[in-house]
Amino acid sequence: MSVYLHDIPLPLAQWRLQSRLAEADLWGVLGAETILLDENALGRVTAQPIWAKTSSPNFHASAMDGFAVRAEKTNTAQPGAPITFRLEPDSAQYLDTGDPLPEWANAVIPIENVESLDQAGEITNAIRRPSAIRIRASVAPWSYVRPLGEDIVATQLVVPSGHALSPFDLGAIAAAGFREVQVARRPKVAILPTGSELVPIGSNLEPGEIPEFNSLVIAAQLKLMGAEATRFPIIKDNFDLICSRVLEAARGHDLILLNAGSSAGAEDFSARVVQKLGSLLVHGVAVRPGHPVILGVIPKNSSIVPIVGVPGFPVSAAMTIEIFVKPLIARWLGTQAGELATEPATLTRKIVSSAGDEDHIRVALGRVRGKLLAAPLARGAGIITSLVQADGVLVLPPGVQGVEAGEVVNIGLYRTRAEIDRTILCIGSHDISLDLLAQFLAGSGRRLSSANVGSQGGLLALKRGEAHMAGSHLLDPASGEYNIVSIRQYMPGIPVKVIALVGRAQGLIVRPGNPLQIKTLMDLTRAEVEFMNRQRGSGTRVLLDYQLALSGISSKSIRGYNQEEYTHLGVAADVASGRVDCGLGIAAAAKALDLDFVPLFHERYDLVIPKEHSEGELLAPLFPLLEQLDFRESVSRLPGYDVSGMGSVILEDR
Amino acid sequence: MSVYLHDIPLPLAQWRLQSRLAEADLWGVLGAETILLDENALGRVTAQPIWAKTSSPNFHASAMDGFAVRAEKTNTAQPGAPITFRLEPDSAQYLDTGDPLPEWANAVIPIENVESLDQAGEITNAIRRPSAIRIRASVAPWSYVRPLGEDIVATQLVVPSGHALSPFDLGAIAAAGFREVQVARRPKVAILPTGSELVPIGSNLEPGEIPEFNSLVIAAQLKLMGAEATRFPIIKDNFDLICSRVLEAARGHDLILLNAGSSAGAEDFSARVVQKLGSLLVHGVAVRPGHPVILGVIPKNSSIVPIVGVPGFPVSAAMTIEIFVKPLIARWLGTQAGELATEPATLTRKIVSSAGDEDHIRVALGRVRGKLLAAPLARGAGIITSLVQADGVLVLPPGVQGVEAGEVVNIGLYRTRAEIDRTILCIGSHDISLDLLAQFLAGSGRRLSSANVGSQGGLLALKRGEAHMAGSHLLDPASGEYNIVSIRQYMPGIPVKVIALVGRAQGLIVRPGNPLQIKTLMDLTRAEVEFMNRQRGSGTRVLLDYQLALSGISSKSIRGYNQEEYTHLGVAADVASGRVDCGLGIAAAAKALDLDFVPLFHERYDLVIPKEHSEGELLAPLFPLLEQLDFRESVSRLPGYDVSGMGSVILEDR
Repeated sequence: MSVYLHDIPLPLAQWRLQSRLAEADLWGVLGAETILLDENALGRVTAQPIWAKTSSPNFHASAMDGFAVRAEKTNTAQPGAPITFRLEPDSAQYLDTGDPLPEWANAVIPIENVESLDQAGEITNAIRRPSAIRIRASVAPWSYVRPLGEDIVATQLVVPSGHALSPFDLGAIAAAGFREVQVARRPKVAILPTGSELVPIGSNLEPGEIPEFNSLVIAAQLKLMGAEATRFPIIKDNFDLICSRVLEAARGHDLILLNAGSSAGAEDFSARVVQKLGSLLVHGVAVRPGHPVILGVIPKNSSIVPIVGVPGFPVSAAMTIEIFVKPLIARWLGTQAGELATEPATLTRKIVSSAGDEDHIRVALGRVRGKLLAAPLARGAGIITSLVQADGVLVLPPGVQGVEAGEVVNIGLYRTRAEIDRTILCIGSHDISLDLLAQFLAGSGRRLSSANVGSQGGLLALKRGEAHMAGSHLLDPASGEYNIVSIRQYMPGIPVKVIALVGRAQGLIVRPGNPLQIKTLMDLTRAEVEFMNRQRGSGTRVLLDYQLALSGISSKSIRGYNQEEYTHLGVAADVASGRVDCGLGIAAAAKALDLDFVPLFHERYDLVIPKEHSEGELLAPLFPLLEQLDFRESVSRLPGYDVSGMGSVILEDR
Repeated sequence: MSVYLHDIPLPLAQWRLQSRLAEADLWGVLGAETILLDENALGRVTAQPIWAKTSSPNFHASAMDGFAVRAEKTNTAQPGAPITFRLEPDSAQYLDTGDPLPEWANAVIPIENVESLDQAGEITNAIRRPSAIRIRASVAPWSYVRPLGEDIVATQLVVPSGHALSPFDLGAIAAAGFREVQVARRPKVAILPTGSELVPIGSNLEPGEIPEFNSLVIAAQLKLMGAEATRFPIIKDNFDLICSRVLEAARGHDLILLNAGSSAGAEDFSARVVQKLGSLLVHGVAVRPGHPVILGVIPKNSSIVPIVGVPGFPVSAAMTIEIFVKPLIARWLGTQAGELATEPATLTRKIVSSAGDEDHIRVALGRVRGKLLAAPLARGAGIITSLVQADGVLVLPPGVQGVEAGEVVNIGLYRTRAEIDRTILCIGSHDISLDLLAQFLAGSGRRLSSANVGSQGGLLALKRGEAHMAGSHLLDPASGEYNIVSIRQYMPGIPVKVIALVGRAQGLIVRPGNPLQIKTLMDLTRAEVEFMNRQRGSGTRVLLDYQLALSGISSKSIRGYNQEEYTHLGVAADVASGRVDCGLGIAAAAKALDLDFVPLFHERYDLVIPKEHSEGELLAPLFPLLEQLDFRESVSRLPGYDVSGMGSVILEDR
């Protein structure tokens, strides 16, 4: 066994599996089954073209409530020269909409175009059962008649083979004379989660334990593709155990997904399992995320079962399913794997890519000043929230080493344009109240997408036209004022509206019980105390520097002053894990991780909104929301928060 | 009861129902339920925002297979000055990817960056269980460590309320510590098909009987919206019976859909049923198709149940569900009704609309020369195939009386742009082999969308740049040649490739057994024989006129010469129904409706393709297909077809 995987190009990897399956006659529809034509047929893929058995309608039908007549007999009717027809065969007959036309008739006169007469020849209210009708205009032959075959003529193609059935397709097939439909049978896929560190989701976690949710994500992905997934129980890292479970899975399934153990670590058994039970075709593919993929086949009776070793990191796992499994399932169903719609977008940040790999980069999307912007999301293979937040994907082919900020790239869209167009991009300092704002804005049909680049970064993004608004809490050391000076400095000439969102406490996040008794900024200079700072340009960093200067403390005297986190929660996580002893941040972050909090300062957190957006339709639901009692209450319940100033206009340029 | 509906504007109709439901506290989420977090949660809508319960990861984890160390101790390592760490606590420890970092460590060195040493200090193959490791470069603190909370920090918002769950959302919620999720309960909808003319789908139809498939289409539409449908058995047109079924449905459901009987005909009981059992809010809405809609409410315990009278024509029924029911279900689930993506397209044909109504016009879409084209489909409310074929919808607001051909309009898209971009638009004369061509092209990922406007109409459409190819069988009376003369006449200056598709028999379509013994064109002049002609510009009409001239027969001597159908199958349907005695057409059309066929002539049917398209990527799969044995065989099995010339190049301009 080699330690290192050997990454091969994606098309070569796909070709190796495909050609092996083709040899075994498994590179096509797996089989067909006949199912009832009911709502469970929705989304199933036709296994045969459907040629109409009967016509629809299969008789000439009245298209209105009215009277069947022979058109020729109406030729001379005029307003001043009416013609009367008795209600009897060969003359006139009442029909409801949809009733068959009598053989002798060739037109229908709608009920509202006749005078109904009684026995005595007087106009009657028994408009549907008169003795006679009188008309004052002629009708053309076949007027108000739905002719036989108007919708469907027997033998015509209703739906081609390989077509995923829509509600309307179901209706058309039924109209064409069927009560059943032949569809491709659903591929059966076994998902085998392996790993001694895995525990069922919802378990109380000990350190080192990981909730096993990959099989859940994969099963849901497969369901959307039209396959049937079986989720096996978690299998410990034991070579023989894994082998026996794989053989068990091979019996009843068309495809085996062995999740994790696909890399080359001490407990990575997948490649050896495949080698022992069958043939290993590929171990390692030049695609990111997800390169430690295994492709192989295992013998089964006189045929084979493909097996995919799916990497363990959740983003890698999900991408492996999209890249390798989706086309296979589509092939087995006889349909096309759905392609993403694409749209050109301007990249807001530089991306670096490893030159040899095909790189799939998830992005958040939003439209500002009519321009579609793509902001790259966290690229770590372990960050499943990047999939949750992703609005689209940028695929960089091998050979491309990166893309500069401002370049226009083609993005595959995960959401409709309508969804993207109602996305509010908020870039700047993060505050927990923005999560609540997102929740409340969702009720008005707006999506709030917030990216955290610090207060100063947010103002610069507004200047570049990359966001609709920014959260900011930048203190001006000279005036003690928040934000105004920085706004003029970083986005000069851009008229803005600035609105107070919250007041909040800033203080020291410390371990439970505050074991080192850190109570003031001066305590940060103690030798045993390790501090975690925030990044340059963040409001919290500015606040710290301002307060250090006031107290005459040198930053050099603080151990850890130069180590930076990008979020309050990042600082809190560092404290919780013992990586550092304390950091400056907000109370909510401390509470999130059951830490203690030593309040020191009170600050204002504002929303900075360029006028062009504050007056636009997209942000319109924001302003009434700030007056809404339930929103204010939700925010005020956050620890250390004060909503008394919420919604105050701090600045409004003409 | 009034005979006529009173159509009110759509927003007013929607407001009447909405305000009545709001009064009864039914204009919001109906209720929540807690479900297991498994693949069945896919698509369910969150009833609450989901705030993370635990962090993910909830410990510092190794991001690689490698060795945990303290970074400070590596500071002096250089290629020429290695540092050795013994495998023991506070020095070095092997970790698999995902293992928790020991408390004393703050960095990981990947296995490939170390030299593994045995007891004797020699390099060993036991790379994961060495006695010591040697490194030749320093590492920064926290290198190759996935910090606690990298993905999710406890208390952060994972997914907002009112959000339909994707596979990735399920994973993120599980990662945040949950095994269950609270979702809006599915609205329960009863579908009651009424009508004495209705029979179950798949029945052998007597004249006047209609297969009941609306409930199938509606149930499938509801399923896609996230509601649960109950399809009731067919109910005869009987007022008391319908009332009792409605009351029964009201007990266990949130919404009742009473299908058909919503108009004002003799058997249209729906409005009276609603009036008797509850209150009728709306009868008739100014929207096409689907104006005879009924909206009402029925008392239920201390509350109400809304009831919608859905029109009977299938297109009207489907549109009523989209327009009235979809927003209600979305409201009840607490989510946004999905909006269609829109794109501007050029209309290929003039549309006339009734000024007072909001008009929903289904269109076929395709891209020619980079321009998106929208061709209006059949607008009849009974034509469900127009929904099957529809690629998008044009909504004309009230007040718009029509749109001219060539105008650019905004189309709501039913398909992705990728699907539309692989659509081949074929406009011209229809031939049944085009249905087979569509079926075979689907295998190459192409959609063939064919519109039938006759041969001449097809050539004119090519000239206007409205199609990729045209089917044509236009005989030149002077030369006896097919198509060439007409191509030069109708599309001068456009270089084309013309390829023979099929040879086929043209002849007289007559009733089974040919009771009138119609055997030659001369028989058409007999007084008792009624003929059905094809439209001007069609190849069949040209052929008829040519042959009549050859035989010296005057068109005036043929009864029915001036009545026109647009398709072979239309002519056949007229014969089958007894509307006429015969028509000129192809054998396949006769066979479709079990008619007899008297072959008279043999003609060639060609595909005419402008060079710019014949050389393009979109049509590339077409040409090899014409050589493909299974396609040729399928076509040759059609009655009266000859594929000997298939694929021959008739003309190819430079």
